[in-house]
Amino acid sequence: MTFAFARRIQHAPSSFLGELFRVSSDPSIISFAGGLPSSALIDTDGLRTAAQDVLTTDPRAALQYSTTDGYRPLREYIAARYGSRLGVPATADEIQITNGSQQCLDLFAKIFLDPGDYVGMERPGYLGAIEAFSLYEPAFTAVPLDREGPKPEAFAKMMHDTPVKFFYGIPNSQNPSGCTYSPERRKEIAEMIAGTSTVFYEDDAFGELFFDKKSRIPVKKFIPENTVIAGSFSKIIAPGMRIGWLYAPQEILSAFNTAKQAADLHSNFLCQQILYRYLSTNDLDSHIHRIVEVYCRQCRLMCELFDDLMPALAHTTPEGGMFLTATLPHDLDAMDVFYEGIRHKVAVLPGMPFFVDGGGTDTIRLNFSNADEEKIAEGMHRLVAVIRELS
Amino acid sequence: MTFAFARRIQHAPSSFLGELFRVSSDPSIISFAGGLPSSALIDTDGLRTAAQDVLTTDPRAALQYSTTDGYRPLREYIAARYGSRLGVPATADEIQITNGSQQCLDLFAKIFLDPGDYVGMERPGYLGAIEAFSLYEPAFTAVPLDREGPKPEAFAKMMHDTPVKFFYGIPNSQNPSGCTYSPERRKEIAEMIAGTSTVFYEDDAFGELFFDKKSRIPVKKFIPENTVIAGSFSKIIAPGMRIGWLYAPQEILSAFNTAKQAADLHSNFLCQQILYRYLSTNDLDSHIHRIVEVYCRQCRLMCELFDDLMPALAHTTPEGGMFLTATLPHDLDAMDVFYEGIRHKVAVLPGMPFFVDGGGTDTIRLNFSNADEEKIAEGMHRLVAVIRELS
Repeated sequence: MTFAFARRIQHAPSSFLGELFRVSSDPSIISFAGGLPSSALIDTDGLRTAAQDVLTTDPRAALQYSTTDGYRPLREYIAARYGSRLGVPATADEIQITNGSQQCLDLFAKIFLDPGDYVGMERPGYLGAIEAFSLYEPAFTAVPLDREGPKPEAFAKMMHDTPVKFFYGIPNSQNPSGCTYSPERRKEIAEMIAGTSTVFYEDDAFGELFFDKKSRIPVKKFIPENTVIAGSFSKIIAPGMRIGWLYAPQEILSAFNTAKQAADLHSNFLCQQILYRYLSTNDLDSHIHRIVEVYCRQCRLMCELFDDLMPALAHTTPEGGMFLTATLPHDLDAMDVFYEGIRHKVAVLPGMPFFVDGGGTDTIRLNFSNADEEKIAEGMHRLVAVIRELS
Repeated sequence: MTFAFARRIQHAPSSFLGELFRVSSDPSIISFAGGLPSSALIDTDGLRTAAQDVLTTDPRAALQYSTTDGYRPLREYIAARYGSRLGVPATADEIQITNGSQQCLDLFAKIFLDPGDYVGMERPGYLGAIEAFSLYEPAFTAVPLDREGPKPEAFAKMMHDTPVKFFYGIPNSQNPSGCTYSPERRKEIAEMIAGTSTVFYEDDAFGELFFDKKSRIPVKKFIPENTVIAGSFSKIIAPGMRIGWLYAPQEILSAFNTAKQAADLHSNFLCQQILYRYLSTNDLDSHIHRIVEVYCRQCRLMCELFDDLMPALAHTTPEGGMFLTATLPHDLDAMDVFYEGIRHKVAVLPGMPFFVDGGGTDTIRLNFSNADEEKIAEGMHRLVAVIRELS
């Protein structure tokens, strides 16, 4: 039979991420295509002990229904870390726990977007955000990035021509480019938003993963009332627990909480408790430093191999995070590289789905967190062979 | 500053459930207001062992990102149970794991509803569903219930006058009434839907909790192509893990999966694995029978106390589930009973939010699963005193 689906889903772009997860699951393929943190760096011993503690101490509470906003001690921990790490005076009342930071994208769009409303995106912009926002049928305006962040003239033009409900940005180790906004550009963007009703959606999945182990000033610091920050434990503890959060002004958080309750009542309470127990009994900074050192080495190796083996290829040079973007030589089409790569057992992510207004056909995103150095070396040789073959 | 929220959230009814969770957390109040299963009946030893097994055997997989559809062995388990328990030949490909069955409500509405589309509800109808659907701005049509289910004439009129995208029903131990559709009524409803594009959304949170330990024929059996079933482990294992599912025809599940991925990528993978491990190493039927025996005693006690202490009050007599509905004597207002009840340390849920078209002001919903017999006896005496005082 034929079902009468809503307009939003009839026009939804077919997802590339699902396809990717399937590709990534073939163990003979070296995948630079996904966005997985290193499995080897998950502190399984620490999390096992934390789980055992929670399920021994007060298991009936951890396994029962809970409140929509999330486990208060965990929210207090997150708020305190904003204070100590970024100098932002957050309180637990400004934090809502979500199912990974992907849910922040969905619920935030849900409370802000009527069909046709304008949303500002980076160009290229994060695919998962485009997929989440698209279901609320907005009109996208894309602001091109340079090495310091969104280009100021284009950002100003967007603010003037298509007043956006919110601008979605990843100032720290942007996905997919791997670039980080400069401090000056953060201030410049913030000044253009100040005094308007536009919200800056500061996605900060990677802010703890700078190779120099230093934090960058958040846009929130310049325009606290106009900014929300989305955070996640997926990249620093474990993605399988699906625990993220939104840090937002109270009025936004109140609407967000209403949407969260309607969406799924509350996030997994057992894992909120396990995570909090883990954070209370382990040194998160040391754990993150171990991750950062490995990712830094893997990133440098990937960049060096491109420079050595294929100097005609341009690539970004990340200061942190998990991704870099490469521009293919000789106007090669990224889809050809993707499919030929799969035949040669190496997966990359074509850049097109990151461009809401088309383009990017000669770009690919590479992940350097999930494959170790040996696999990166082997995978890069396979990839370079594919590109040479197609050139 | 003033934020430019979407229309859907500006018009969202202020939630009563959040208020309830807060009230329920005061330990001096005996609460019949919430929808919590009995904490005492959660198999904490079994779940602790299962968690330890998962985090010892292959923790890195359980803590990593996973696929949107959910852990395949868990989906196979769920599908097989539909076969053995209800005689419905489900396959794993027809099952999508969600964050509790509340998320089924949100995502199903998301893929079906454009603003103004008609949705059919039971009258009274489940509050959590009303809250989830409302954010997609539908027009509700409510079909009154009698003891056998939705009244046939009203159901026929709805199908004729306001062709609904879907009808949301809880045939087994309906929430809030506690009534169960008769087999004849199920067939009658199904025949009215057959051949139309209307979907029957069969919410089956309580189908395992019949006091006679027998299952009822699902509406899905009569009109498989027009029916989706939402299920949940919250009432039979533990709600804090937030694991539910949708069982649906492939075309619906494909759109639902797109919405799920955009919403939060996938459900908590660690708990999916813990749950599957638990189910593989424990006898679920015996566990459910233990729960059912306790709920049956508690329900009967509640009914008997009403009959003995307050014969003027009418109440439903559930065959299972967790709730009954009472109609107050002397045209008492349920809100007065609610507020006066809180003062007397007993909480009930006023019926009004279950009526999308108004009414129900003299009804209250009572939960009999969470309080034990001693608390039910004490709470019922407090409640009867409140009603007498107000009469």
